[in-house]
Amino acid sequence: MSANTPPPSAASPMYRLHPYWYIACRSSELRAEPVARTILGIPLVLFRDETGSAKALVDRCPHRNVPLSFGKVSDGKLVCGYHGWAFDGEGACRDVPGFTGEPNHRTRCASSHAIVEQQGYIWVFMSAGVTPESKPFEFPHMDTKGYTVVRRDLEAECSLHAMAENALDVPHTAFLHGGLFRSESVRNPIQAVIQRFRDHVEAEYIGEPRPTGIAARLLSPSGGVVTHFDRFFLPSIIQVEYRIGDENHIVLNGACTPVSETHTRMFAVVTANTRVPAWLLKPILLPIGLHIFGQDQVVLRLQTQTIQTFGEEDFASTEIDLLGRHIQRLLRLAEAGQLPDSDEVVATRDITMMV
Amino acid sequence: MSANTPPPSAASPMYRLHPYWYIACRSSELRAEPVARTILGIPLVLFRDETGSAKALVDRCPHRNVPLSFGKVSDGKLVCGYHGWAFDGEGACRDVPGFTGEPNHRTRCASSHAIVEQQGYIWVFMSAGVTPESKPFEFPHMDTKGYTVVRRDLEAECSLHAMAENALDVPHTAFLHGGLFRSESVRNPIQAVIQRFRDHVEAEYIGEPRPTGIAARLLSPSGGVVTHFDRFFLPSIIQVEYRIGDENHIVLNGACTPVSETHTRMFAVVTANTRVPAWLLKPILLPIGLHIFGQDQVVLRLQTQTIQTFGEEDFASTEIDLLGRHIQRLLRLAEAGQLPDSDEVVATRDITMMV
Amino acid sequence: MSANTPPPSAASPMYRLHPYWYIACRSSELRAEPVARTILGIPLVLFRDETGSAKALVDRCPHRNVPLSFGKVSDGKLVCGYHGWAFDGEGACRDVPGFTGEPNHRTRCASSHAIVEQQGYIWVFMSAGVTPESKPFEFPHMDTKGYTVVRRDLEAECSLHAMAENALDVPHTAFLHGGLFRSESVRNPIQAVIQRFRDHVEAEYIGEPRPTGIAARLLSPSGGVVTHFDRFFLPSIIQVEYRIGDENHIVLNGACTPVSETHTRMFAVVTANTRVPAWLLKPILLPIGLHIFGQDQVVLRLQTQTIQTFGEEDFASTEIDLLGRHIQRLLRLAEAGQLPDSDEVVATRDITMMV
Repeated sequence: MSANTPPPSAASPMYRLHPYWYIACRSSELRAEPVARTILGIPLVLFRDETGSAKALVDRCPHRNVPLSFGKVSDGKLVCGYHGWAFDGEGACRDVPGFTGEPNHRTRCASSHAIVEQQGYIWVFMSAGVTPESKPFEFPHMDTKGYTVVRRDLEAECSLHAMAENALDVPHTAFLHGGLFRSESVRNPIQAVIQRFRDHVEAEYIGEPRPTGIAARLLSPSGGVVTHFDRFFLPSIIQVEYRIGDENHIVLNGACTPVSETHTRMFAVVTANTRVPAWLLKPILLPIGLHIFGQDQVVLRLQTQTIQTFGEEDFASTEIDLLGRHIQRLLRLAEAGQLPDSDEVVATRDITMMV
Repeated sequence: MSANTPPPSAASPMYRLHPYWYIACRSSELRAEPVARTILGIPLVLFRDETGSAKALVDRCPHRNVPLSFGKVSDGKLVCGYHGWAFDGEGACRDVPGFTGEPNHRTRCASSHAIVEQQGYIWVFMSAGVTPESKPFEFPHMDTKGYTVVRRDLEAECSLHAMAENALDVPHTAFLHGGLFRSESVRNPIQAVIQRFRDHVEAEYIGEPRPTGIAARLLSPSGGVVTHFDRFFLPSIIQVEYRIGDENHIVLNGACTPVSETHTRMFAVVTANTRVPAWLLKPILLPIGLHIFGQDQVVLRLQTQTIQTFGEEDFASTEIDLLGRHIQRLLRLAEAGQLPDSDEVVATRDITMMV
Repeated sequence: MSANTPPPSAASPMYRLHPYWYIACRSSELRAEPVARTILGIPLVLFRDETGSAKALVDRCPHRNVPLSFGKVSDGKLVCGYHGWAFDGEGACRDVPGFTGEPNHRTRCASSHAIVEQQGYIWVFMSAGVTPESKPFEFPHMDTKGYTVVRRDLEAECSLHAMAENALDVPHTAFLHGGLFRSESVRNPIQAVIQRFRDHVEAEYIGEPRPTGIAARLLSPSGGVVTHFDRFFLPSIIQVEYRIGDENHIVLNGACTPVSETHTRMFAVVTANTRVPAWLLKPILLPIGLHIFGQDQVVLRLQTQTIQTFGEEDFASTEIDLLGRHIQRLLRLAEAGQLPDSDEVVATRDITMMV
């Protein structure tokens, strides 16, 4: 479907990860009107057919290249607003008003994308015209008794890689978010074990004290043992899992959707089972979380602008940049089609850092 | 004059139609001050010499490349606002203040363009420094007794080709302009005969009922036979000619001026002889016409943006896309210098469509 | 330091003059906070170390490419706002919070630039990591008894070359600034002698009458002999020196800082010893000077826009364009490393112009 693919930008290669699922929007956003969303630089239009099933086409009428999202949905067909060409959910042309011949023809089809709607999100498979063998990521504990679910749709002016590394990076929390989350002044040595698998990477932090910030003190006033995992799943899922003391289990999930090289959305889902009741916790923790993300947005935008000014990334690292390089390696292997076959651990590393 | 030609953009080849006439502005717009206009991406400056003749130069002082339109007209010369270099209507340098030598020199000339001023418009020939053999298009019936003339200067964010096809395209009128002009719900089969000549193409619609919209009902309340021609003349003239019943003859002319790849102006001239008196018709039809053009502007801008996003046009068609492909073919032949010599019909086609 | 150099733009070659000094900002602008400035397209961050010495690094953290100017200065180190990496004035990494190893490492250094702070300005040497053999330009008479000093920081949307030529160009003053400075109507023939040296060029005007504008009449009401030199020093210093009658000595200096191909700053310093006392002169002459510069800003911006539209400069000249071509030649020789060794006069020319 080369004619339906935008020309390559100055994109780094990690962005050509089309045969994967990405969230386009929430289920609740897609009603009677078509919805336009861009993923991996490709404009898509989403709509619901006559059965209510979500459908995704490339957002360009094959006739005169007006965006189909300018049109309307009529009898479960997406109708272009210029000449009224009508398309079904698979992109076949079903009506050309005024034309006495058969409307459906190979050249008059819109490219279609597979969709899965689950857990309140609409996921799109970004290889056009393909029936995917894989399934989208499932957010854990969304239906588990005792767990509260909080959703937020976030976005930042940065690449997918920058967003994922930032979300899973521990050292910056003490600095950029100092006081809110971790403290810059009090640091303790901890161990981190990194394990890279076929399609994901995980860091486990051992001996981490309860964070000293406000948030952690609310959750576990008496301190207690902390278990902490950070994970990245191809192509774009981040996950932070905490157990603080016996009573608190918190999983922060973020399904990232690369809009362009420099713009990424994150559909965040927090599932938590905590000692403090949910109705009490949410009004306190949510503003803190959004404040933290606001600080990240600023630094990510500045990082993106600086990389654009200099024309390319030029990163130096230390061993406490635990996951960034592994994320990048996974993205590159996936893009090159060189992921290993088995899901055994392919790399493991044990390092000390001050947290 | 390569040094005076902007570098090629991502232009489609159809835009390199320089040896043709285009309207720069209305006669009434060009008074004592120089006027800047861009055509085919080339900035021009228009001014009137000491005899009142309109003149056109490339809008760049050959001295230090300040736009000459920043200057003023003095004694029929165009004087640059930076150092006062003065140019006559042919672009020769007539004064270099402070310089004791002869100002006129080959390297100090501004490129000039031939001009014809007629029917209230200033036409520019876009090959610089050439005395053209051809003449500009003449709008018909502008001086015929009984005809009312309405002028409007319009513009849209689209290519010349997109504007011309849109203006001459029948099928979208029932859809995009549904109700105003033609109806989406009631359709009748009609015949269309397309004839392509050396430098223009014409569609005649046979058996077309009087359009059901408000406009047509005003003109011919009792119905009556409709004669309808759509025409495109190289490089950029569109013409829609209607006879509705015995009493109404309406010719809509549009002289398009490509400003850039994605911006086109249209100098529209409607000449009409109708049963309803002109003073009654104009306040009703003009707002309808401008409303229709406003809808076209929106869809043309969206089309342009989508083509830019995907990097190129990718159009599919049916046979009821009567004129678009012929327009494109004429533009391409003209650009390649491959127009046939004779003005006999070079192609004819007979199709059925529902209107 | 190729990784720290932005990729070449559509820059003309004259801008690659890195092994030279340029003013980044005034001394008074650099206090406790880091200051961001761009020179030759390279973003720099300036800060003061623990001794108060000004330091300049490339404004990109080597870690994750966030601009260091987003950070803060702590104990004389520049601390990145993202992870807290701390750099000394030479760009060495002195702290990586959380990292238990040695922070300083070749890959973790920020590029540094030599700085000289003198006469209230901070000069930066634009070849990174080099100890320069040359010294910055010194503004004359800043500490001479009887001289008043006026400073203004100006900027315009133009290249360094366009700004320097404009500042030293006599013919446009009678036209663009007609009446304020020189008159368009009354002109007298004068001689100009141009001498080009190894790294500068000078025009001396012989027989120039006292300018007829307001400014000159204030300074020397009785007329008197005028001595007038215009000078350009590589890479970017302009100087206009006037003696009007016996009592007035005025030197206008401008140290130009090329920010980008199309944006240039000028740190202007006027040193003057005049018959009219300074407190009386400044409120009259300063607004006139700023008005004149405002007119130049307009024409320089239009010149830049026109050059961008056409893709390149295409200048014609006469012999009264005294210094522009010499400035360009010096810039090109300097860039190619082909400046002559000796400082003897390498060219001299004698021309007549009407002023």
